[in-house]
Amino acid sequence: MRPFELKPIGIIRSEHREPGKTPIQPVYCPECEGRVIVAPEYTEGLADIEGFSHIILLYWFDRAGPSALRVRPFLENREHGIFATRAPCRPNPIGFSVVTLLRREGGTLHVSGVDILDETPLLDIKPYSGRFDSVTQSRDGWQEGIGEDTARRLGRRGFDSSNALESAA
Amino acid sequence: MRPFELKPIGIIRSEHREPGKTPIQPVYCPECEGRVIVAPEYTEGLADIEGFSHIILLYWFDRAGPSALRVRPFLENREHGIFATRAPCRPNPIGFSVVTLLRREGGTLHVSGVDILDETPLLDIKPYSGRFDSVTQSRDGWQEGIGEDTARRLGRRGFDSSNALESAA
Repeated sequence: MRPFELKPIGIIRSEHREPGKTPIQPVYCPECEGRVIVAPEYTEGLADIEGFSHIILLYWFDRAGPSALRVRPFLENREHGIFATRAPCRPNPIGFSVVTLLRREGGTLHVSGVDILDETPLLDIKPYSGRFDSVTQSRDGWQEGIGEDTARRLGRRGFDSSNALESAA
Repeated sequence: MRPFELKPIGIIRSEHREPGKTPIQPVYCPECEGRVIVAPEYTEGLADIEGFSHIILLYWFDRAGPSALRVRPFLENREHGIFATRAPCRPNPIGFSVVTLLRREGGTLHVSGVDILDETPLLDIKPYSGRFDSVTQSRDGWQEGIGEDTARRLGRRGFDSSNALESAA
């Protein structure tokens, strides 16, 4: 199968400059604001996005390490397959975050819940739809063994060598 | 900014052969089963995925039309910006579906809620996490004006010229 080509359609700005100190998921950093700056040639595509309270951002993990098939994710010391985790070092390093849309100013979207490194290349924006996207009952595999307090503490602080579960406990 | 390259990591098999008859979202086709076949060199990355009831599939809309910045989405006759819709003809044609994981057999994941065309190239699999991904209260923009009965009827049938709202009403 031949490779596919993606073009950056903009850039994501945030307060997060170091991978090891970047929050892991939007739910753990609701107060982190940022900006999604869409390149001028694509801003027409933002029409009517203001009506949505949440948007899905797809972006390129441009500072991820080399791809690995087994990783130790931020919530655990055990290894899991990369596709059973949200780690960035994926075969196709595409990031996915659902963020809160605060307001739009032309080609700039002001958002909160930003768990994304500053200057990350933007690939796509999709409206989050409560109708399509909310799974109210899910079984969450290895994550179910981890208490919400622990997840919240580690999730906000980011993932570096000091926040493995054993040292954080 | 330079382009990024993606490699297919597998293929999605489904009963859907015609774009115009493919359901629009997993919620409208819970009974549609399919298979996610991961290429042998990536199957190790599936370790422990069995514990999750839902998975996020990212895939390449390989049969999407040319990219457009304004589209008329399946639920409405009015045009909206492409980033305020889930239409496939996006600047970067990456598809996103949350499907139900029924079981795994080696490198094959049996799934349901498949709204994806047969033989679609697979880009990534992420575990769906109730903890991270479920937004229970969202404001859904232009979609809020559309009744759930209508959405359900159109969503299951797929999107072709005959299912604009006015003719379906």
